[in-house]
Amino acid sequence: MDKRYEDMWTSSLAERTKRLTRSVIRELLKVAQDPTVISFAGGWPAPELFPKREVEEACRYLLPRQGEVLLQYGATEGVKPLKEFLAKKSGKYGIPAEPENILLTCGSQQALDLLGKVFINEGDRILVTAPTYLGAIQAWRLYGPEFVTCGMDDNGVLIEDVEKVLKDGPVKFMYMLPNFHNPAGVTIPLERRKRLAQLAEEYNTFIIEDDPYGELRYEGEDIASIISLKKERVIYLATFSKTLTPGLRLGWILAPEFILQKIIQAKQGADLHTGTFVQYIANDLCQRGILKAHVAKLREAYKERRDVMLQSMEKYFPEDAKWTHPEGGLFLWVTLPKHIDTKILYQKAMEYKVAFVPGFAFYPTEGGGKNNMRLNFSNTLPDKMEEGIKRLGDLLKKEL
Amino acid sequence: MDKRYEDMWTSSLAERTKRLTRSVIRELLKVAQDPTVISFAGGWPAPELFPKREVEEACRYLLPRQGEVLLQYGATEGVKPLKEFLAKKSGKYGIPAEPENILLTCGSQQALDLLGKVFINEGDRILVTAPTYLGAIQAWRLYGPEFVTCGMDDNGVLIEDVEKVLKDGPVKFMYMLPNFHNPAGVTIPLERRKRLAQLAEEYNTFIIEDDPYGELRYEGEDIASIISLKKERVIYLATFSKTLTPGLRLGWILAPEFILQKIIQAKQGADLHTGTFVQYIANDLCQRGILKAHVAKLREAYKERRDVMLQSMEKYFPEDAKWTHPEGGLFLWVTLPKHIDTKILYQKAMEYKVAFVPGFAFYPTEGGGKNNMRLNFSNTLPDKMEEGIKRLGDLLKKEL
Repeated sequence: MDKRYEDMWTSSLAERTKRLTRSVIRELLKVAQDPTVISFAGGWPAPELFPKREVEEACRYLLPRQGEVLLQYGATEGVKPLKEFLAKKSGKYGIPAEPENILLTCGSQQALDLLGKVFINEGDRILVTAPTYLGAIQAWRLYGPEFVTCGMDDNGVLIEDVEKVLKDGPVKFMYMLPNFHNPAGVTIPLERRKRLAQLAEEYNTFIIEDDPYGELRYEGEDIASIISLKKERVIYLATFSKTLTPGLRLGWILAPEFILQKIIQAKQGADLHTGTFVQYIANDLCQRGILKAHVAKLREAYKERRDVMLQSMEKYFPEDAKWTHPEGGLFLWVTLPKHIDTKILYQKAMEYKVAFVPGFAFYPTEGGGKNNMRLNFSNTLPDKMEEGIKRLGDLLKKEL
Repeated sequence: MDKRYEDMWTSSLAERTKRLTRSVIRELLKVAQDPTVISFAGGWPAPELFPKREVEEACRYLLPRQGEVLLQYGATEGVKPLKEFLAKKSGKYGIPAEPENILLTCGSQQALDLLGKVFINEGDRILVTAPTYLGAIQAWRLYGPEFVTCGMDDNGVLIEDVEKVLKDGPVKFMYMLPNFHNPAGVTIPLERRKRLAQLAEEYNTFIIEDDPYGELRYEGEDIASIISLKKERVIYLATFSKTLTPGLRLGWILAPEFILQKIIQAKQGADLHTGTFVQYIANDLCQRGILKAHVAKLREAYKERRDVMLQSMEKYFPEDAKWTHPEGGLFLWVTLPKHIDTKILYQKAMEYKVAFVPGFAFYPTEGGGKNNMRLNFSNTLPDKMEEGIKRLGDLLKKEL
């Protein structure tokens, strides 16, 4: 393109675009697309387990009967029977919800963006863990907040860090992934959840509780969600991407009706509404009990993959490597000796035909996660898992 | 909700939410849901014409064969064969495009929001027609621009108004709906399009060309799009919502690759990507020639509806009422004597069991459109059309 046009476009960009970044993971994934690479890099569910037949059944049943509704515009709030189902389901998990508390979104990613739009002023302090979900950083950075970070241990966020941040000055909200944290794979026990809810009350702030993996628990007991402990101060995010399929792009926000109205207004300007068609398909799978059965199937399959990964790591990883033992979800988090830089290690891993995500990608500020990596176990077949971990182990033994 | 919680949520809202508004139309539509009301208010396509069977065929064919891809995450840019199809199709319309110039969005509404995000700083002057598409106002108002308006006649935007605005000071961009304008129903002839492209060049700015209805022409010849006249200075928006079905939520942005990369980054943070499933369905309908056949069918059906509406208006409307004669699209625009306030008229129309959108809804600033109304003809069956227009005519005769 001619320089003067390029200059025109560049100078037309809004100030906020200086904060735009491409997802590191998506860039890495492109590199890892070589089919001979065993990739633990993505966060993708297992495609061979997708309920293909059940989705097809839904289409065959619904289109001739309700095609006029499925293919038409719909309400911004979302499709009513699906909202009713989700409200009822939430109730079973101890989360008090009416359909009026629920807004369907294009995946949880859109929920994060809408929350950024509705809440974040430039310079707002936002409390996050370090590491944290990189999609949240990407969505929110555009709105110009200051990310203030808290450390974690095997029980999730460190409460003393949270207290310190809150004492330092007001935060707009706290962002938490209590179940099977992405990328850390750790879960916050009940006592800490209670403390977080208390601290939100004490410091007059609120919590965004992001729970994409909560239903994918492979051992131990379910723990009460933070929203069930203090519903007035929590916005809860969930999604069908991990429990059903991501290709439908369906998630939902559960929030006090009063504030949800504002989020709905933002959603209306953002894309009018979430696709009617995909909402009706999801609703059909929910109402027919397919969701429930499918989650049970995933629990079994992913548990096996997690177990094979953990066993293989015991077998092939050098002693200096440490890792978390997730009770559910899709990820675990490896900590290597301090002199290792996983960004450099990633390049070498390509030669070993194995991929992971270097830890730095999950830190909102520079310098974190240098000697960490995230491994995904949902998207690798068990019979390839050991080989992949062996390759990575061979590399680590050479480098450590 | 307890007052202290309400206060906390209210005080947590970002500054920009003061500019959030609910769509007037969507509120009006709720009133008009009484099935005895004949509504010309919505902008909805005819549901009885939706390609239900063809969508079902696509699902039945694709899910067993490519279910793993259809239901998985996908690239932010969009599904490749669909982008290739759209690039080729654009070429046929004289719009030079490669797949790299195309980004799939969740309807054109998301395109508008992404463009606001990427380009609009608070206080930026944006040139729009008055009236203009209200979804654009809704999406962009959040980013705090100043809307500067230009008048229209039966040939669309007044070039002298555009020149005046450009002379007054720099504008970030000009927003144009050249074909069958929503709400005005008018089309910009080639000469004015050329002038707009020249003016963009002269004043070193760019044009957003929004073209949701371009394919729905019922008489006359296609006119070259502005992007085909000056591709370096135009971002072009199109959608499947009017030509196929809105329930899939699929639109696309065509832009210089250089700037599209920025928009893709914004899209990634906004919702990762547009649904893989619906993109593959649309692709199947495109590749099988269904889109083309369906557009031909819609042209015929909507032409009839337009004709019946126009003939009925001649028959039943009082002499003092004037209206546009759209060559395509979904809408026409009525101008009533100055003493009429269509906001008040709307309430009375409810008693007559007929609905329209009062003109004020399409003005970014207060005071415009007081004596105007928009009528939609795509969503009313021909045999109800005359009765609806008769009801409205009866009311008008009483009020004028």
